[in-house]
Amino acid sequence: MAGIKEECGVFGIYDLDGGNVVPSIYYGLTSLQHRGQESCGLAVSDTKGERGNVKFHKDLGLVSEVLRQDVVRKYEGDIGIGHVRYSTTGASVAENAQPLVLSYVKGTLALAHNGNLVNTPELKWELIQNGAIFHTTTDSEVIAFHIARERVHSKTVEEAVLKTAKKIKGAYGLVVMSPRKLIAVRDPYGLKPLCLGKRGNAYVIASESCALTSVSAEFIRDIEPGEILTITKDGLKSNKELASAAAKRAHCVFEYIYFARLDSTIDGVKVYDARIRGGKSLAKSYPVEADLVTGVPESGLPAAKGYSEASGIPFAFAFYKNSYIGRTFIKPTQEERESSVHLKLSVLESVVKDKRIVLVDDSIVRGTTIANLIHMLKEAGAKEVHVRISSPPFLHPCYFGTDVPSNDQLIAASHSTEEICKMIGADSLGYMQTDYLEGMAGGLPLCKACFDGNYPMEIPDYTNAEFADIVKC
Amino acid sequence: MAGIKEECGVFGIYDLDGGNVVPSIYYGLTSLQHRGQESCGLAVSDTKGERGNVKFHKDLGLVSEVLRQDVVRKYEGDIGIGHVRYSTTGASVAENAQPLVLSYVKGTLALAHNGNLVNTPELKWELIQNGAIFHTTTDSEVIAFHIARERVHSKTVEEAVLKTAKKIKGAYGLVVMSPRKLIAVRDPYGLKPLCLGKRGNAYVIASESCALTSVSAEFIRDIEPGEILTITKDGLKSNKELASAAAKRAHCVFEYIYFARLDSTIDGVKVYDARIRGGKSLAKSYPVEADLVTGVPESGLPAAKGYSEASGIPFAFAFYKNSYIGRTFIKPTQEERESSVHLKLSVLESVVKDKRIVLVDDSIVRGTTIANLIHMLKEAGAKEVHVRISSPPFLHPCYFGTDVPSNDQLIAASHSTEEICKMIGADSLGYMQTDYLEGMAGGLPLCKACFDGNYPMEIPDYTNAEFADIVKC
Amino acid sequence: MAGIKEECGVFGIYDLDGGNVVPSIYYGLTSLQHRGQESCGLAVSDTKGERGNVKFHKDLGLVSEVLRQDVVRKYEGDIGIGHVRYSTTGASVAENAQPLVLSYVKGTLALAHNGNLVNTPELKWELIQNGAIFHTTTDSEVIAFHIARERVHSKTVEEAVLKTAKKIKGAYGLVVMSPRKLIAVRDPYGLKPLCLGKRGNAYVIASESCALTSVSAEFIRDIEPGEILTITKDGLKSNKELASAAAKRAHCVFEYIYFARLDSTIDGVKVYDARIRGGKSLAKSYPVEADLVTGVPESGLPAAKGYSEASGIPFAFAFYKNSYIGRTFIKPTQEERESSVHLKLSVLESVVKDKRIVLVDDSIVRGTTIANLIHMLKEAGAKEVHVRISSPPFLHPCYFGTDVPSNDQLIAASHSTEEICKMIGADSLGYMQTDYLEGMAGGLPLCKACFDGNYPMEIPDYTNAEFADIVKC
Amino acid sequence: MAGIKEECGVFGIYDLDGGNVVPSIYYGLTSLQHRGQESCGLAVSDTKGERGNVKFHKDLGLVSEVLRQDVVRKYEGDIGIGHVRYSTTGASVAENAQPLVLSYVKGTLALAHNGNLVNTPELKWELIQNGAIFHTTTDSEVIAFHIARERVHSKTVEEAVLKTAKKIKGAYGLVVMSPRKLIAVRDPYGLKPLCLGKRGNAYVIASESCALTSVSAEFIRDIEPGEILTITKDGLKSNKELASAAAKRAHCVFEYIYFARLDSTIDGVKVYDARIRGGKSLAKSYPVEADLVTGVPESGLPAAKGYSEASGIPFAFAFYKNSYIGRTFIKPTQEERESSVHLKLSVLESVVKDKRIVLVDDSIVRGTTIANLIHMLKEAGAKEVHVRISSPPFLHPCYFGTDVPSNDQLIAASHSTEEICKMIGADSLGYMQTDYLEGMAGGLPLCKACFDGNYPMEIPDYTNAEFADIVKC
Repeated sequence: MAGIKEECGVFGIYDLDGGNVVPSIYYGLTSLQHRGQESCGLAVSDTKGERGNVKFHKDLGLVSEVLRQDVVRKYEGDIGIGHVRYSTTGASVAENAQPLVLSYVKGTLALAHNGNLVNTPELKWELIQNGAIFHTTTDSEVIAFHIARERVHSKTVEEAVLKTAKKIKGAYGLVVMSPRKLIAVRDPYGLKPLCLGKRGNAYVIASESCALTSVSAEFIRDIEPGEILTITKDGLKSNKELASAAAKRAHCVFEYIYFARLDSTIDGVKVYDARIRGGKSLAKSYPVEADLVTGVPESGLPAAKGYSEASGIPFAFAFYKNSYIGRTFIKPTQEERESSVHLKLSVLESVVKDKRIVLVDDSIVRGTTIANLIHMLKEAGAKEVHVRISSPPFLHPCYFGTDVPSNDQLIAASHSTEEICKMIGADSLGYMQTDYLEGMAGGLPLCKACFDGNYPMEIPDYTNAEFADIVKC
Repeated sequence: MAGIKEECGVFGIYDLDGGNVVPSIYYGLTSLQHRGQESCGLAVSDTKGERGNVKFHKDLGLVSEVLRQDVVRKYEGDIGIGHVRYSTTGASVAENAQPLVLSYVKGTLALAHNGNLVNTPELKWELIQNGAIFHTTTDSEVIAFHIARERVHSKTVEEAVLKTAKKIKGAYGLVVMSPRKLIAVRDPYGLKPLCLGKRGNAYVIASESCALTSVSAEFIRDIEPGEILTITKDGLKSNKELASAAAKRAHCVFEYIYFARLDSTIDGVKVYDARIRGGKSLAKSYPVEADLVTGVPESGLPAAKGYSEASGIPFAFAFYKNSYIGRTFIKPTQEERESSVHLKLSVLESVVKDKRIVLVDDSIVRGTTIANLIHMLKEAGAKEVHVRISSPPFLHPCYFGTDVPSNDQLIAASHSTEEICKMIGADSLGYMQTDYLEGMAGGLPLCKACFDGNYPMEIPDYTNAEFADIVKC
Repeated sequence: MAGIKEECGVFGIYDLDGGNVVPSIYYGLTSLQHRGQESCGLAVSDTKGERGNVKFHKDLGLVSEVLRQDVVRKYEGDIGIGHVRYSTTGASVAENAQPLVLSYVKGTLALAHNGNLVNTPELKWELIQNGAIFHTTTDSEVIAFHIARERVHSKTVEEAVLKTAKKIKGAYGLVVMSPRKLIAVRDPYGLKPLCLGKRGNAYVIASESCALTSVSAEFIRDIEPGEILTITKDGLKSNKELASAAAKRAHCVFEYIYFARLDSTIDGVKVYDARIRGGKSLAKSYPVEADLVTGVPESGLPAAKGYSEASGIPFAFAFYKNSYIGRTFIKPTQEERESSVHLKLSVLESVVKDKRIVLVDDSIVRGTTIANLIHMLKEAGAKEVHVRISSPPFLHPCYFGTDVPSNDQLIAASHSTEEICKMIGADSLGYMQTDYLEGMAGGLPLCKACFDGNYPMEIPDYTNAEFADIVKC
Repeated sequence: MAGIKEECGVFGIYDLDGGNVVPSIYYGLTSLQHRGQESCGLAVSDTKGERGNVKFHKDLGLVSEVLRQDVVRKYEGDIGIGHVRYSTTGASVAENAQPLVLSYVKGTLALAHNGNLVNTPELKWELIQNGAIFHTTTDSEVIAFHIARERVHSKTVEEAVLKTAKKIKGAYGLVVMSPRKLIAVRDPYGLKPLCLGKRGNAYVIASESCALTSVSAEFIRDIEPGEILTITKDGLKSNKELASAAAKRAHCVFEYIYFARLDSTIDGVKVYDARIRGGKSLAKSYPVEADLVTGVPESGLPAAKGYSEASGIPFAFAFYKNSYIGRTFIKPTQEERESSVHLKLSVLESVVKDKRIVLVDDSIVRGTTIANLIHMLKEAGAKEVHVRISSPPFLHPCYFGTDVPSNDQLIAASHSTEEICKMIGADSLGYMQTDYLEGMAGGLPLCKACFDGNYPMEIPDYTNAEFADIVKC
């Protein structure tokens, strides 16, 4: 599943009993690590301490690298937020790590954001007119700036957040922390997930329910699309003004196909069940006579299980995955590659030899990985390899925070399914049909624009010169 | 499988065409990383360079940490060996990292060792009489010392290795490198695995065949128990004097149960097949009516698959494993543990709810882990949990390099199977029977002393005071 | 001289021939390191590259630690600025490192600042009214913000800088970089030093002339108080509107007493000469019969030399200084201190035994260090120790960027000279007289407010509640 | 003084009252850091603990880098030794760091060594015959090996040390630690310094007296050449068998010229006094009319002071030294060098302008550094520069541990004083005369073989092939 990347994951917690929330943030972020491996951070406030006393730590690296024991020990508070960010290559972007922590007329504001806005240039333009300056290139800073500006003419932070939410367009799961409040905000379409849990007298906000489980919090409910939930020492307060005004919902289909963790439940739908259903629908759409069904570890395994259940063809493990190949692994040079295939995945020969195999994965980007795996299976003696993909082909860009490669890197953008089947060396190839996606996701209204081009909202065009400059700043 | 640890893995390579072998050592060690995560290292020689010019690098840490790109780039040679060592806690033991590289009358000697000797005190005594001094507390240094001493009165290194092999008793897979030779040695019982592969004109030695695959080398054959294989620029030369004198073979059963990688083949037996057979025999010995079979990730999964195949009960994934919980993960304190269960493994509720489950693992040490998992399954709604263990209970110490916990930590040492079943909260419990182990391992002669106490060789008793001191030095 | 700390040092360079200026920034900052050891950084722009392409790197640590070879190699440009910041203890303040690099309506702006403003709350208030948010707690960010706001209604960056300079009050030596311009600004009082040099076709700006020397640039002239000097591809352009409006000059006397490097020349006065003159005037004010004159290394040595020259009493080295006691040195605990005096400085017994000694230092803060040294000298056999201090006693706070300890830490705030003499165990004690300071500094108009309380400008009082909050944000 | 390097410094301490000696080792090594900056380490034993329980830590780096607070905190004991080693470039030689800690028949032995043996090949040969193997290429390991071998047939460690001392030839200051004893050994010629101090009931051994001072120990006496001093819980025991057999003493002249710290006293002679005397004798040998005398910082300053005192020409500081140019400083490339002279040293123009200067340094190796300094002085306006060197020209190799460059790097090896004077651009040049060295060193018998070729002992020739191999191993 190389090539498709999630933007981020967010976490927030407020222990009304005053307990230190830092260990919970650490464990929560660890369980959201799959949503972003580039950078991470936390910000905490002690509501009993001096006003405005927000401390934070963030850097490039995994949770276990950035939030080491000696670092974590220095932070303490009863209210806090955290963030994980996805992995890019190249440029040092420690400046873009979150949470953002800012000072303004009303004190301190911390913010962590999952998602992507579509009207950032317009929002920036408004700020820029007043001489705004930016330290980062993130739209998260733009959101924070608008909240700060609105705060001057608002009675409460949550009122400023509401005014801001009315202006920003796009996908967002936000946690905002003032020194004494924790606010959760979800975009009116529900594009990005966000949920609420409780452990004793501590309220927990997280991008996925698995993070609630990791801190032994009970799942209460999803934050509603458009809802602004404010947690203070007096408990919960919900504003749904934006929610009721919302035209429609459009949950990101990719959470169910790939992003979310297998044990999470999002908007009432268990991710595991969705993936099993995806595999089953593939079995119905593209039946084939075969001896075994297998999946590409790890992401293809659940759909493979579903295919097996629906087809009656036995499920099998065909690959061994080396779990020690981490981020610091030295990649083979072109020359060495010849003599170092099979490093990450190797085939279990006794499983595949002389077998007709159904190989399930969740997507095809460039096609090189699946081609390699098919080659390895055939070299190990597989008679046939039938590929089934639990998502439709990518054909359109995502404006909401999913890092889909550009068209020239997408094999489906320029080739038919038949051509791809031949190019990757498969005996047959079947993609999930777009119409089946809602069924997979338990009947939820979806955003599946990356497959069919139907965006849930208008995507403004800022290609004229003036805005081009703003986008760059 | 916490609690049972392998000693080490070794790797050696000689490219007769003169190509640089360092990248292959790196990839080979990465694929042997499961055999030891405490420390690692490599030593290389350039046969065309100045005599005795052996360079090495070793330290505490994973292969990806110790052999970083900037480090690896400094080493080059056409002959080299490598080593991974198992993970202990506490004491800084960088000094014990391997390969050992020593200077002596005949030049330089490098050595990497997997296994454990049983007559180390005697061997040390002989050396000590002549004023020997030791830099490490490893028996590997004792072996190296004997080779060096024998070398003075031998015509070749391999002759010195043979004389040494006649004196040392126990388990060993050794790779020895002189500036122009690579020698592989395996103990006469075949307790530790060692195999030979070839890629072009490069010969490769490795503890497991998966390391051959990782460098695209073709598997040639296992090194025979008692064989001394010497690789020079003129090719292979095998000495089997010790092999023919050997009384019997006794391959370590734990390689098949747990140590070896799923995609390796050892002494003609595919590890995957063995584990499937293990699961099948459990199904025959301990049948039960159930709705699904699952395994504890990752090590319990293959035997669970075997159980499923033999019983006809469907296989399922019941757990999600967080792969970001690495060595630097901050473990919860006792207090935090309450609020941070499910960090490493979480249950897929929709799989297990209202189900009767067969849960397969490869061993029980303290019993706390399996008890936790059973508790989690039941909390998620499982009706019954039947535990099947693909090895017999540990009852005896291993003298050959497997780090079995002491009796007071082994639940089976002081409790009957019925008691254990009750203690861990299972509905039934079945251990693999000792008699079935040979069947699992494809009929190979096995050392299964940790289960039945029948050691393949006499274990000398050095408990008298004099030797106690030697053992310490 | 522990206790008195300089704020910062700045450096800027523009090579009109397009050469890479990064090595020069590295060497320049290294020669300004004495002005700040807490953090440092650089920002560079390639004027031939894409518009707005400013890269930067900054962190806590010395120049040699933050700008390591592997880091520096990644940066290249023909225009750049750098900054060193002073060393505090405790709080992690990587966020406050400079240069500040910001994006705004007109592109990118980088800024490095030495000094301290006195009307920051007012300046913040103006920004805050418009919902400004701050990432740091530095007044440097406030300056940058005003430049950015003014830029919207100005034709050029330098015009925006001028408008800003008219609003800000206090001490500043600034370098401002836009992608194609380098601007140097000095406060109208000339409180902080700033000078201009040239090497080939490269213009260099630096806090001190020693940084020009370090990159083989020729000293051209000091930036005039109130001058705004803009360097573009067309050369130099100077605006002195603010300079001519300036009421008077007031150069910080402490640059001559302690801050500046011995080999620098500031506002036409050689620092070395000033310190020699300081020592000479001490000799005239406080003559004493003695056998030798010595100084506390390193800062007391030049004034000691001056005392020797004026008095005719021979100069001698009485102390050895251990240069390996750096920032990571483990300080002795109270208990260990007993057994670890003399670690940093030790006495040369054969120099001081049976001698009457004049001991010169540049200031007394708490008095504990000088007391220790006197004790050491007497223990080594000195008969008399006469202390001469080349500055008057500190009695007033500095608002312009010098970190003078608070009154309760200043021995002179609560004790007469006679009392201090007794407390430190000296045989006599003489402080430089305030009236002599101008003479020491070659007749320059000085700010010596920390000694006499006469501040060159009005210091606004922001102690009311409203501003207190602003100051905190 | 680049080019001439000391081998090492040693430290040992035994607190008979049982106090933890680790902080003292840390401070002692810090004060010996000038004797070696490549690597360092410590080994400690708790005499009340389990027998043989010696712990150690060593690595490449300065004392403040290797013995960081978190590391040091893990070690504790009432007896310990430490070592600093000199700085080389290139090859990673962590293996050669000391103390050496070894296990042998009688337990554990730790050893730290300053100096160099001249009969190492012979000593190795004897060991090699018995199959000895070496982990390092140091002669220190050879010494340890002989002690271990002798220990088998000796009643005590100190007896084994004596037998070893009778066999080894060359220069050595040794501290040897067994779990309950601390032994100090000095070569019979007294080539390397070693002294004894006391603090309360703690005995301290150090290469130089400055290390005693640093831990507040009182200097007791120098260890006599050939003396073996054993410290046990019962106090001191001295063996002078070797001392009385010694033919003559020959203290290394370079300790007085350059190696030792200015505040140390070695063999009754104060280093400071020696350097002052050196400068004075230069004034007598090479008088000149001049306006001021200065020295190259730091090492040339004391002799410059001596020259000034004897000649009556005033002493002056002519250079400023940047103390932030440490080991990680990025050296300018050839190209950058043009634009980055004066980085480490810069000239104080107002001191030297229009002056006739005597410039004193302690030696000339290649001549490039002094040539640069003379050029800088003249550029700053100096009228004449007369160079005086407080040592004779190097003409012969040192076999005792001083790293004198080879002849092709020594300007004096191939040029007359007149030629050198012209090459470096000096107006006159005078070297200390060899006959004056004893006078400088207070009349002590000296080894000054590097100047006159008269070695105090025969230097064996091992150039035949057989030994060449041994030397390499």
